[in-house]
Amino acid sequence: MTPSLGVCYYPEHWPEETWAEDAAHMVRLGLSWVRIGEFAWSRMEPEPGDLRLDWLDRATETLGAAGLKVILGTPTATPPRWMIDKHPDMLAVDANGQPRKFGSRRHYCFSHAGYRDESARIVAILARRYGANPHVAAWQTDNEYGCHDTVLSYSDPARRAFRIWLAARYDSIEALNAAWANVFWSMDYRSFDEIDLPNLTVTEPNPAHVMAFRRFSSDQVIQYNRMQAEILRAHTDAPLIHNYMGRITEFDHYEVGEDLDIASWDSYPIGFLSDRLEASDAHKQAFLRQGDPDMQAFHHDIYRRVGKGRWWVMEQQPGPVNWAPYNPAPLPGMVRLWTWEAFAHGAETVSYFRWRQAPFAQEQMHAGLLRPNRTEAEASAELRQVAEEIAELGDVEPARARVALIFDYPSAWAWETQPQGADFDYFRLVFAFYKALRSCGLTIDILPARAPDIAGYDLVLAPGLMEVGAPFVEALQAQNGLVVLGPRAGHKTDEMATILPEPCPISELGGALLLVESVPPSEVIPLQGGGAFCHWVERVAATETVAERTVAGDPAVLRKDGLAYLCGWPDAPALGRMLRAWCAERDVPTLALPEGLRLRDTATHRFVFNYSAVPLTWDGTQIPPAGVHWEMRK
Amino acid sequence: MTPSLGVCYYPEHWPEETWAEDAAHMVRLGLSWVRIGEFAWSRMEPEPGDLRLDWLDRATETLGAAGLKVILGTPTATPPRWMIDKHPDMLAVDANGQPRKFGSRRHYCFSHAGYRDESARIVAILARRYGANPHVAAWQTDNEYGCHDTVLSYSDPARRAFRIWLAARYDSIEALNAAWANVFWSMDYRSFDEIDLPNLTVTEPNPAHVMAFRRFSSDQVIQYNRMQAEILRAHTDAPLIHNYMGRITEFDHYEVGEDLDIASWDSYPIGFLSDRLEASDAHKQAFLRQGDPDMQAFHHDIYRRVGKGRWWVMEQQPGPVNWAPYNPAPLPGMVRLWTWEAFAHGAETVSYFRWRQAPFAQEQMHAGLLRPNRTEAEASAELRQVAEEIAELGDVEPARARVALIFDYPSAWAWETQPQGADFDYFRLVFAFYKALRSCGLTIDILPARAPDIAGYDLVLAPGLMEVGAPFVEALQAQNGLVVLGPRAGHKTDEMATILPEPCPISELGGALLLVESVPPSEVIPLQGGGAFCHWVERVAATETVAERTVAGDPAVLRKDGLAYLCGWPDAPALGRMLRAWCAERDVPTLALPEGLRLRDTATHRFVFNYSAVPLTWDGTQIPPAGVHWEMRK
Amino acid sequence: MTPSLGVCYYPEHWPEETWAEDAAHMVRLGLSWVRIGEFAWSRMEPEPGDLRLDWLDRATETLGAAGLKVILGTPTATPPRWMIDKHPDMLAVDANGQPRKFGSRRHYCFSHAGYRDESARIVAILARRYGANPHVAAWQTDNEYGCHDTVLSYSDPARRAFRIWLAARYDSIEALNAAWANVFWSMDYRSFDEIDLPNLTVTEPNPAHVMAFRRFSSDQVIQYNRMQAEILRAHTDAPLIHNYMGRITEFDHYEVGEDLDIASWDSYPIGFLSDRLEASDAHKQAFLRQGDPDMQAFHHDIYRRVGKGRWWVMEQQPGPVNWAPYNPAPLPGMVRLWTWEAFAHGAETVSYFRWRQAPFAQEQMHAGLLRPNRTEAEASAELRQVAEEIAELGDVEPARARVALIFDYPSAWAWETQPQGADFDYFRLVFAFYKALRSCGLTIDILPARAPDIAGYDLVLAPGLMEVGAPFVEALQAQNGLVVLGPRAGHKTDEMATILPEPCPISELGGALLLVESVPPSEVIPLQGGGAFCHWVERVAATETVAERTVAGDPAVLRKDGLAYLCGWPDAPALGRMLRAWCAERDVPTLALPEGLRLRDTATHRFVFNYSAVPLTWDGTQIPPAGVHWEMRK
Repeated sequence: MTPSLGVCYYPEHWPEETWAEDAAHMVRLGLSWVRIGEFAWSRMEPEPGDLRLDWLDRATETLGAAGLKVILGTPTATPPRWMIDKHPDMLAVDANGQPRKFGSRRHYCFSHAGYRDESARIVAILARRYGANPHVAAWQTDNEYGCHDTVLSYSDPARRAFRIWLAARYDSIEALNAAWANVFWSMDYRSFDEIDLPNLTVTEPNPAHVMAFRRFSSDQVIQYNRMQAEILRAHTDAPLIHNYMGRITEFDHYEVGEDLDIASWDSYPIGFLSDRLEASDAHKQAFLRQGDPDMQAFHHDIYRRVGKGRWWVMEQQPGPVNWAPYNPAPLPGMVRLWTWEAFAHGAETVSYFRWRQAPFAQEQMHAGLLRPNRTEAEASAELRQVAEEIAELGDVEPARARVALIFDYPSAWAWETQPQGADFDYFRLVFAFYKALRSCGLTIDILPARAPDIAGYDLVLAPGLMEVGAPFVEALQAQNGLVVLGPRAGHKTDEMATILPEPCPISELGGALLLVESVPPSEVIPLQGGGAFCHWVERVAATETVAERTVAGDPAVLRKDGLAYLCGWPDAPALGRMLRAWCAERDVPTLALPEGLRLRDTATHRFVFNYSAVPLTWDGTQIPPAGVHWEMRK
Repeated sequence: MTPSLGVCYYPEHWPEETWAEDAAHMVRLGLSWVRIGEFAWSRMEPEPGDLRLDWLDRATETLGAAGLKVILGTPTATPPRWMIDKHPDMLAVDANGQPRKFGSRRHYCFSHAGYRDESARIVAILARRYGANPHVAAWQTDNEYGCHDTVLSYSDPARRAFRIWLAARYDSIEALNAAWANVFWSMDYRSFDEIDLPNLTVTEPNPAHVMAFRRFSSDQVIQYNRMQAEILRAHTDAPLIHNYMGRITEFDHYEVGEDLDIASWDSYPIGFLSDRLEASDAHKQAFLRQGDPDMQAFHHDIYRRVGKGRWWVMEQQPGPVNWAPYNPAPLPGMVRLWTWEAFAHGAETVSYFRWRQAPFAQEQMHAGLLRPNRTEAEASAELRQVAEEIAELGDVEPARARVALIFDYPSAWAWETQPQGADFDYFRLVFAFYKALRSCGLTIDILPARAPDIAGYDLVLAPGLMEVGAPFVEALQAQNGLVVLGPRAGHKTDEMATILPEPCPISELGGALLLVESVPPSEVIPLQGGGAFCHWVERVAATETVAERTVAGDPAVLRKDGLAYLCGWPDAPALGRMLRAWCAERDVPTLALPEGLRLRDTATHRFVFNYSAVPLTWDGTQIPPAGVHWEMRK
Repeated sequence: MTPSLGVCYYPEHWPEETWAEDAAHMVRLGLSWVRIGEFAWSRMEPEPGDLRLDWLDRATETLGAAGLKVILGTPTATPPRWMIDKHPDMLAVDANGQPRKFGSRRHYCFSHAGYRDESARIVAILARRYGANPHVAAWQTDNEYGCHDTVLSYSDPARRAFRIWLAARYDSIEALNAAWANVFWSMDYRSFDEIDLPNLTVTEPNPAHVMAFRRFSSDQVIQYNRMQAEILRAHTDAPLIHNYMGRITEFDHYEVGEDLDIASWDSYPIGFLSDRLEASDAHKQAFLRQGDPDMQAFHHDIYRRVGKGRWWVMEQQPGPVNWAPYNPAPLPGMVRLWTWEAFAHGAETVSYFRWRQAPFAQEQMHAGLLRPNRTEAEASAELRQVAEEIAELGDVEPARARVALIFDYPSAWAWETQPQGADFDYFRLVFAFYKALRSCGLTIDILPARAPDIAGYDLVLAPGLMEVGAPFVEALQAQNGLVVLGPRAGHKTDEMATILPEPCPISELGGALLLVESVPPSEVIPLQGGGAFCHWVERVAATETVAERTVAGDPAVLRKDGLAYLCGWPDAPALGRMLRAWCAERDVPTLALPEGLRLRDTATHRFVFNYSAVPLTWDGTQIPPAGVHWEMRK
C-alpha cells in the first residue's frame, strides 16, 4: 500500500471562483484526497426542507475534475438553528442539568429520537445524491463523536431512553436491584420508571448505576453511527469512515468501528501536549513544539485496531492551533515527522486540517496549509517533501508486532467512576505502559479486551483491565507467550461489583488480595529489583508464585508459566526493567532509547523519529531535530 | 467503667443463613455491641405502608442470642425512592439552587414538614416494636447529621421555615431591620415574607442575614433530632446516641447532644488527614498511614462534652477507606492505637465500621474487619489484642483535666461568614491551640461557650470566640485560674455586628482595638519573646496591662490578674512558649513532646501513644511505631 | 488648581444628633467635600411612591451649614426589595443562566426597561429637589458600574434588547450572517429573533457573536448613565461624576465619561495588590502594605483622560479593607503618599471611603477615618498633614506628558474573547508597558484609540490594539514623533475577523505576518539586543524594515520613519532597553528607577514617591519608606 495525502476543505467558506484554483494547488502539492461538507448543513438546507445542494454538486465536480478524491462528510455535527425550533428538547444537557445552547457545534443529544430522524433524513438525501458519484470516494459520518463532552447527556430524552435500555438489559426491576445491590443505602427501585440519571446526587451514586449509564451512553453513540452507516451502505460502495478525537474515551471506539470500514483520528500533537497530557513541566517544555513522542503512536495503534487494520489520520495539525492553553508552532520538520510516523504505523492516508486558514469565526487562529491570504504556510513545503518521499519509498506495509497492549473503554469508565485514588486514571496507566514499551524500542499492537486476538504475541500486557471476562480467559488458554495482568486487573464484575477472590487473576496465580492502597505522589513503595510502585499498590498473600517482592517483603509480581500479575503501578524505571526481562525471556530484542528517539518497524523498514529539539544519534547515524530516518529491516 | 468493643453490621446485605456465623465470629473477636438498621428503610418498608420487619426481628434475635447488644439505628438518613413521589419537594437544595437528586443518601431537607412526619412515623413504628426488646440496648438517631453538606438547604420549605423562625426571633420586621442594620445598601424589608435565603446574591449578603440562616439551619437539625428522641423515649429506656462526623460544624453539636444520652463520632484518622486537615506536605507524608496525632483526640474531647461525659466511637476506621483523595492502609498497630486512645479519653465503646467489606455499591473499597470473602482483615488481630488488653487493664476512668479549651459552633459560622482573611478558619484556629497544648503533654477538656463550666480549671483558652456573652462573663468572675481569650474573641454581638469597644475583653483589660490585619502566609509579625503572630493580628492600644509586645513594640498580650488577651494568632513556637509559661504559673507540669508522641492521663493511668513511623523514647521506655504504652500515674 | 479633600458619609447610618458633630469634625480635619446618598433608596422611598426625603434635606443642610460641599449620589445601585416585586425579571443573570438574588447590591440588569424607568423617576425626584440646592456642589450617578460582574447579564430583557441592538447595527440578518461568517459550523440565522446570548454553548461561540454582545453590553451601561445625566442636567449646573472601580473593563469608560463632567475612581491599593494583580509572590510580599507602585498611577492617568482632564479619587482606601483575600493595614505614611500621588497626576479632589467605620453589615471590617467608636483612625492624622501641605504647596497643575500609551476597552474584550494563549490579557499587557515607562522615570498620558489626540507626543505606544481604525491611521499621519504598535496590534477588523495582511501595521512596514505563537512562562524567545519576548510572539517576514532581530534571526522590531512594530511581548529588560533607546532618539530623558521609587512631573514640580518599605535615595535625598518628596522642576 502506497500512502497518500489529503486535506480538509470548506468550499462554502470561499468564493466559488477560487475553488478550481484551490483544487489545482492541492494537486500540485501532492494531495489526492479532500474532505468536504461536514459542517455545511445550514448551506445544504437553509430552511427546513429547502434543499440547496447545487453548490455541493459543483464543488464536488470541481474537485473531482482536478483529480482529487472526495470524502463527503455528513453534516450532522452542526444542526442548523431552525432545528432547535422543531426540536427544542434536542439539546445535550450537562451534568449540572443545564441545557447546552445553540451557537457552536455538537449541541445535540444522542438520545433524541427527533434529531435522530432528522439526521437519517439528511444522510439519506446526501447518500441518494452522491452515493454513486464517481468523485466521492469515501464518506465520513458526523465529526469527532465525543468532542466537547456531549456523550454523557443528562436530558429528559436520555432519561427516557436509559429506562428503556435498562429494561432491556435487566428484564425485571428485581434483577436490577440485585445486580446493583440497591439494598445498600435503601436505593431499591420499584420500577424502571423510578430510575433517574446518576447526576446531582448528594454524595456519589451507586457505581453500578453510573457504569450502566456509561454503557448506555456509549451504546447511544454506536446506534447513532450505525443508523448513518446503514443508510449510506444502501447507496454507496465507498468506504465509511469516522474521525475520532484524541484522548476521548466516552464511548467504545471499537464498537463504533465495527460498523465502519476505516478508522481515522484527528492528530494535534502540540495541542494535546498542552491540553490533555499528564507530564512534568520539564517534559512539556522539552517537547513544547513537537508534542509528546508517544501520544500520536499510541493513538495510531488504537485506531489501527478500531479500523480492523485500515486507518487514516483525518486531521493532522499543520501549524499552531487555537484551542490549547498555549499554542506554539511546530518545530520545522515536525509536520513531516508526524506524517511519516503515521505511515510507519500503517496509515493509508494523512489528511491535514485545514486547507486555508479561516480569517473568521471560532477557528481563525488555527493554521492551515495556506495562510488566510492564500500564501503557503510553513507546513506546505514539508508535505511537498513527504509527497516526493512517498514516491521514492513506495509501499509501507505494517507488520504484526510481537508485543500487544490491551486498551479497553469500559475499564476507563470503571476507574473514572471509582478511582479510589486521585491519580488513578486508566488512560494514564495504559499510556505509561505504552511509553515504557516504546522506550524499549518496541513496535506494539493495541487490542480490545472483548474477543482479544492475543494468540501468537510474545508479550501481552493488560494493566487496569476492569474485568477479565470469559472471552479473555479463553484467549489466555490459547496463548503461548507471556501475559501480564495488573495492576488492578480483573478486580470487578461487569456490574462494577468487586469480584470475590476466586476466580480472578490473583487467585489463578495462587494469591489472595488482602487490601489495596492509593498513595500520593510523595509516597513510593520500593521494589527489591529496583524502581518502585507508585499511585497504587495491592497487598497480596502468595508464596510459591512470587516472582518479585517489594523491599518490605510483600509480593510485587506473581508468576506462573505464561501468566504474571503486577501488584502495583510500576514507575518508569521498574517497568522498563521488567519489560526488558520479559522480552529477553521471549527473545524479543529491546533497546534503551532516550526520551526523544522512537522507532517503528514495518514489514520492510525500520523508521527512526527524533522528537527532540537536538540532534540524536541512532546506530551511528545522526538524526537532526524533528528528523526522520528509515532503513531496511535487518 | 470497663471499655467495650462493637461493630457496624448490615444483615440486609448478607444471606440470612450467615448471620449466626457472623454473630459467633463477632463474639469470638471480643465484640459486645453491634449496630444495625440505619440504612435499611427500603427493606423495612418497600412500599409506602407495607412494613416488613420480620427480617429485622430475626436479625436482632440472632445477634442477641449470640450475646451481642444491639444498637438499632433509625433509617431516616436513607429515605426510599417512593418517598420522593410522595414529597417531591423534600430534596435538599444546594447553594446554587439545584435540588439534590435521589440515588445516594441524606437527600432530605431538614425543613420539610412532610418528611419530618414520615420520619416520625417510621421511628414510632420501630420504637413500638423494639423499644422493650431486651437485645436492643441502645438506639442511634439517623446517621451523621451534616455529612454531605445538606444542613444548609436552600429549598422552598427551608425558605418558608426560615421566615417563621425569623418572625419568632424578631417579633417585628422593624426589629429585624434594626438588628441586621439593613439600612446599609437599602436592604430593608417590609415584611418577613420578603426575606429570602442568603444565597446567589450579587456580592456577599448581610452577615447578619447569613448568621441568622446558620442559626436557623442548626435549629432545624436540633428539632429534627429532638423529634426522634422524644418518640424513642416514649417507648424505651435504652440510651439514645447519634454518630457525629469529624470536622462537621454546620450545626451545634452540644445542643443536639442535650436531647441524647451518649455522643458518638465516626473516626477515620487516615481519611481525615488526606481530606480535611490543613497541614504541610511534610506533615501529611509523615503521618500518611497513621493520621494526625491530635485530630482524633480533639474530637474525643469535643464529644465527651457533647455527650455530657458519655461518649463512644461509633465508626472506627479499620483499614483503607474509599472516600479520601488518597486511601493508604493503616500502619500495623494503628487500629489498636486509635482504639486505646479513645479509651484513654473516656470512650465507653469503640465500634468498627464495618463488619464485612461490601463487594458492591458505593463503599465496596472501604475495608471492614472481614474482607469481602469473609477472611479476617488486618484489623481483626489488632482488636482481638485490644479485647485481651481490656481484660487485663480493667476500668479506665477519665479524669477532669486542669486545662480547658472552648469550642463554639456559632463562632465557626461567624468566621465562615466573614473570615476577613483567606486563612482564618475557626476549626483550624482552635485546633492549632489544641495541638500546642498536646505538644506540652497536657490532658485537655473541651467546653462549650454557653454556660461554660470553667470554674476550677487552671487554664482556660478561648481563641476566636465570636461573642463573649453574659454567661461567659459570669463564669469568668467565678474562675480563679487563668483565662486567655483571643485572638478575635468577643469581637461581635450575637447579631454579627461589631461590638463597640466597651465592654469587650480588650476593653476589660484596659486596651482599645485600633485595627485588625489579615496577612498571607509569607508575612509574620515577630514577638519579643520569640515566635510570631501569623494569619491575623490586632493592633491594640494599651499601656499598663501589656504583658508582651511584638518586636515592633505593639502590644501582643494583655494581662490583668486572671484574664489575658492574645492580640494575634500565635505560631506554634510562640504558642508553645506562652502555654508553658502560663502552666508554670499555675503549677501545671508541661513537657515538650515530639510531634509523633502524645499523652493522655486518666484518673489512674498515663497513656503514651507513638503516632510516628519510627520508635520514640518516652521516659526511658522505647515505644515502637504505632505503639501504646501505659503506666500508673505518678 | 488647589487640590481638596473629601469623604464618603452615610447619615442614614447614624443618629441624627451626631451629624453636626461629624460635620464639624470633618471640617477640622481639612475636608471640604462630602459624598452622601448613593445607597439610601430604601430610606428615601421605603414603599413605592412614599418619598421620605426630609432626613436628606436635613443632612444636606447640616453638612452644608458646616461649610462642606455635598456630592449627592443617585441611589440606583441599590434598588429596594419592593422593586423586585414590581419587576421580578429585573435581576441580572449570570453566565450560567442563574438570576442573581436580592440581598446585597447592584442586582439590576442594565437592559431592564422597567428598572430604567424607575431609575429615571428617582433621579428626577432628587434632581428637582436638590438641583438648585446651594450645598449640593456635585452629583454622582449610581455607584461603581461594573463592580460585581453585572454588566454582562444573560437575562431575557438583555436578550430582547440585544436583538434590537443587532437589528439596528446590521439592518438585515443576511448582513449579520456575513459579518459574523456564520457559515462556519452552520451557525446561520434566519432572523434576529433566532439569536441568543452567547453563553452556555457546547464549545466556544463565534467570537463575532461574543464581541457584538460585549459592545451591546457596554452600550447598555452608556445609555443607562446617559439617561441619568440628561435628567440631572435639566435641573442642575453642578458637575456630574461617576466613580469607576479599578481594573473594570466590561464597558467603555471613555464613552460613559463623554456624558459626565468629571471622572472619579475608587482607589484601594492594598486590596488591588492582593486581589487583582498578576505579580510574583516576592513582589506581592514587598508591597504588601503599600500596593503596587504603578497600579494607582495607571488608573489616575486613565481617568484623567476619561474625565477629559477633570478627575477625582472618589474613594481612597484609608486602612484595611474587607474584601481582598488578605487585608493588611497600610504602612504608616501610605495614605498620605497615595493622596499626593493622585494630586501629582492632576486629581482635583481625593475623597476617603469612609468617614466612620460601620459596626454592622457587609463592610463592618472596612476601615474609615474614624473607628466604629468615633475615635480617629490612623489615616486621620495623615490627611490632616496633607491638608496642611496643600496649604503650603498651593496649585498643582498637571503638565502634558511627552509619552502616551493607548488604552482601549474593545481591545480588552477582543482578547478576552479570543486570548489564544492562557497568559494573554490586555490589561496585563498595557500595564506591563506602563510599568516599564514608569521604571524609566517617565510621566505618561493615557489615550483612547478612538479619535486619539496623539499629535505632539514624542512617543506613543499601542500594544495589543485590536483594530487600528481609520481615525487612528489618520492621527498617525499627523504625528511627527514615534508611534510603536504591537504586539498583536491591528490584527482584527471591528467584527473580530482576522484582518487580511494588507493594509495592517505590519504590511505598512513592508512585512508579512507568517504565524503567531503563544507560549508558556517557561519559554522565552531571546532578542539580539538583550531581553526576550515572552507569552506571545509573531513570526513576520520582512527585510529592509527590520530594526531588531531575535537571537534565532527572526524580525523582532520593524521600523520605518516614525512608525515601529513590536513582533512580540517584550519582557521587562527588553522593554526597558527599547524604551530608553526610543526616548533617547527624541531627547526625552530617562532614568533607571528601582521598583519602589516612582516620579511624576507636574507643570511646576517633580514629585518622588517611595513605595518601598525601606529608605531609598533620590538624587542625593534620602526618602523614607512611604515618603513623598517634591521639588521645583529643573
